[in-house]
Amino acid sequence: MARVVSARISDVRFPTSLDASGSDAVNVDPDHSVAYLELIVDDPSWPSGFGYVFTQGRGNDLAALAIEITVGMLPDEDLEDMLEHLGEIGRTLVHDSQLRWLGPEKGVGHMAAGAVVNALWDIKARRAGLPLWRLLSDMSPEALVELVDFSHLTDALTRREALEILSAGQEGKAERIAELERDGFPAYTTGPGWLGFSDEKMLALIREAVSAGFTMIKMKVAGDLDDDRRRLGLAREAVGPDFRLAIDANQRWEVDEAIEWLSHLHRFGLWWVEEPTAPDDILGHARIRRAIAPTRIATGEAGANRLMVKQFLQADALDVVQIDMSHYAGVNENLASILLAAKYGKPVVPHAGGVGLCELVQHLSYFDYIVIGRSLDGRMLEYIDHLHEHFRAPVEVTGGRYRLPTAPGTGAELHPESVRTWLFPDGPGWKNLRERELVPQLRKSIVEHATAERAEVTA
Amino acid sequence: MARVVSARISDVRFPTSLDASGSDAVNVDPDHSVAYLELIVDDPSWPSGFGYVFTQGRGNDLAALAIEITVGMLPDEDLEDMLEHLGEIGRTLVHDSQLRWLGPEKGVGHMAAGAVVNALWDIKARRAGLPLWRLLSDMSPEALVELVDFSHLTDALTRREALEILSAGQEGKAERIAELERDGFPAYTTGPGWLGFSDEKMLALIREAVSAGFTMIKMKVAGDLDDDRRRLGLAREAVGPDFRLAIDANQRWEVDEAIEWLSHLHRFGLWWVEEPTAPDDILGHARIRRAIAPTRIATGEAGANRLMVKQFLQADALDVVQIDMSHYAGVNENLASILLAAKYGKPVVPHAGGVGLCELVQHLSYFDYIVIGRSLDGRMLEYIDHLHEHFRAPVEVTGGRYRLPTAPGTGAELHPESVRTWLFPDGPGWKNLRERELVPQLRKSIVEHATAERAEVTA
Repeated sequence: MARVVSARISDVRFPTSLDASGSDAVNVDPDHSVAYLELIVDDPSWPSGFGYVFTQGRGNDLAALAIEITVGMLPDEDLEDMLEHLGEIGRTLVHDSQLRWLGPEKGVGHMAAGAVVNALWDIKARRAGLPLWRLLSDMSPEALVELVDFSHLTDALTRREALEILSAGQEGKAERIAELERDGFPAYTTGPGWLGFSDEKMLALIREAVSAGFTMIKMKVAGDLDDDRRRLGLAREAVGPDFRLAIDANQRWEVDEAIEWLSHLHRFGLWWVEEPTAPDDILGHARIRRAIAPTRIATGEAGANRLMVKQFLQADALDVVQIDMSHYAGVNENLASILLAAKYGKPVVPHAGGVGLCELVQHLSYFDYIVIGRSLDGRMLEYIDHLHEHFRAPVEVTGGRYRLPTAPGTGAELHPESVRTWLFPDGPGWKNLRERELVPQLRKSIVEHATAERAEVTA
Repeated sequence: MARVVSARISDVRFPTSLDASGSDAVNVDPDHSVAYLELIVDDPSWPSGFGYVFTQGRGNDLAALAIEITVGMLPDEDLEDMLEHLGEIGRTLVHDSQLRWLGPEKGVGHMAAGAVVNALWDIKARRAGLPLWRLLSDMSPEALVELVDFSHLTDALTRREALEILSAGQEGKAERIAELERDGFPAYTTGPGWLGFSDEKMLALIREAVSAGFTMIKMKVAGDLDDDRRRLGLAREAVGPDFRLAIDANQRWEVDEAIEWLSHLHRFGLWWVEEPTAPDDILGHARIRRAIAPTRIATGEAGANRLMVKQFLQADALDVVQIDMSHYAGVNENLASILLAAKYGKPVVPHAGGVGLCELVQHLSYFDYIVIGRSLDGRMLEYIDHLHEHFRAPVEVTGGRYRLPTAPGTGAELHPESVRTWLFPDGPGWKNLRERELVPQLRKSIVEHATAERAEVTA
């Protein structure tokens, strides 16, 4: 009988704030990072499973501790049996009677549950010798529906409705798999659009993206209105009138400010406006959406949980559901969101980028097409050419399309050398940068932790 | 010039799961705990400041680390100056460009910002020689409005509107202060209502609460419908037809289930129904509220942030705003919620109980009455006779009313002996319980943290 015998957790941070990669109106200095988990099985014939919480740098240690606490709640049971009940395991981790106070179902504790759930999915897929997308696609509707946490969801989606959606998706599955394996999946790119880039760099990257065959280009906005007009004008001119151009405000605007600001950008022909205001503001998004129709609203990457997705759909507050492999509780909760989107007839276009978000979330888009959404209308996968070299099985994007991975697992495994180099704060990569004075010296902590020993001495 | 020179953080847990105190339909085994912060100033003539994140046990270490990270973001500046700009300090901690990804503005990182902000308020009030409620009441409308983070709030409450509310509240302030100092503030109690209690214990406590002069009794429900009917029947019989009886479902129900379940409880004459469903479900609460009108809905204790409070008010989804000193970012964010409630004409009745939530939040109710709400209509403070003995300045409740504290500060300071005894996991209280086999032995952690040293050895 195999058991999870140890869990290795690594605080891995990449110094991306040194150039402007990943910069936008809100994330001005991201160090793209992962709190990285390896679940190790006592039987050496079993593979390890990998998962992570993606973060922007500070707080990556908090995500690591949250993963540690979550791992501590895994039942010490037969792993084979656990992998048959990943829905139940996920619900156990998400609804722990004490830990839930720190959410419930939101924040770093919730994200950590996702990392652990995903590491178990990685083991399951590797054991099956299948990439995650294929493992999910081969599962029965009954097995899939068991993964969903329907608590507080049933006014929007019942188990029976989910089962109907999944059952209907069995028809033509083999053809859709063959189609994706042959043609790949359409990708859009955010690569050219970062706020920190010069106009020249932006235009060069835009031309490159168009000729590479990408379906859409997304531009970061909301720093300065004049800049946005100039950059979007240049971008539209470069891509021509029919190419999809979207913008991303990264939550920057007030509700009324968004409506006003967007009235000036509307003429550039926007495919969608992403995160115009706070990600929690369902009613605000609904108001903005009504004001800027028919321009689409896309949001969800920084949502708290499936209950927010539910309400965004109920309130007709978005057009595009952006699931995310960091903020939500892993494969299981994203499956709930995909089913909700199907019920309400909205396309899912995942958030990707960061560290390894492309590697993970691609599987869900393929599965969505194969079994749930069954249409490519409005569907795409975000692509950013960023940090893929650190992964054992990096995504492959050619001709503007993702190529379906064949390696077993979820794609979450990093090269051990990358983990070693960029361990924070003392990996050789960070030591080197500090010696060259390229990153701030760490400030001496002023924190002292109370311990029983110390308290007894001073008492 | 005074500076914060060190921060002592203690993981303090009380073994409240040993009896049924604090048990309800969701929190079945709480160990009421605090991640406890003391900010120490380099000038010995300055007081320390205390603050904490209240938790239910597991995850208290996560809250402690979140506080550590947040303390590390405090500017290393003149403390006198920082205390004059607590609004700005609070916004800096809440909106950190990297850390915000773990929320934004939700979960344990957000709660930690509250603990740090509150510890600074404690220093400020002690330096002024005033209890927090009095310090706030004496502040000018202009100074108070600077505390509020208006980002993403302005479609519901502008700075100008907030200033108008605060300015109007200056009239008659002295009289209201005198009135509260004379008469105290009405309290309700949840003490008799825990699900774990026998009917006999419940009834004895109910009779005690009525004769002690409490304004309302709140009963936990939603475990079992027949139990709820029996317990509410007994309770209503014991208190008579006119006494305020409220119920608290602790998020247990689906939206439709809440409507159905409550149709069976309506006849017991309920003052409010608290947390009928998920705390994030604005639209669900709105639907339940319409279905059970005129019974009130109370919620907010587990809300993510002021943006959720905003939407609950905009959607007319509640009748009673329950602010909380643990989930929100401290005094500053709760001030935003109180102003929002005033704008929408809803009473604020804080969540209390736990460890020290009464001690902290009472100040905000007094301030609300003195400067903002200016009415006692529907206003109360929750009281639970639980763990107050650990505080230096415990709340005083007599004749069913809170008596206004006169000690300088926020009331957050614990007795050092309590901190020492209940340090987790190795304080003498916990050691003793483990020796007597009254609490589970700690399981050996299976987690191994990657370090640069270890990686270099194995590389």
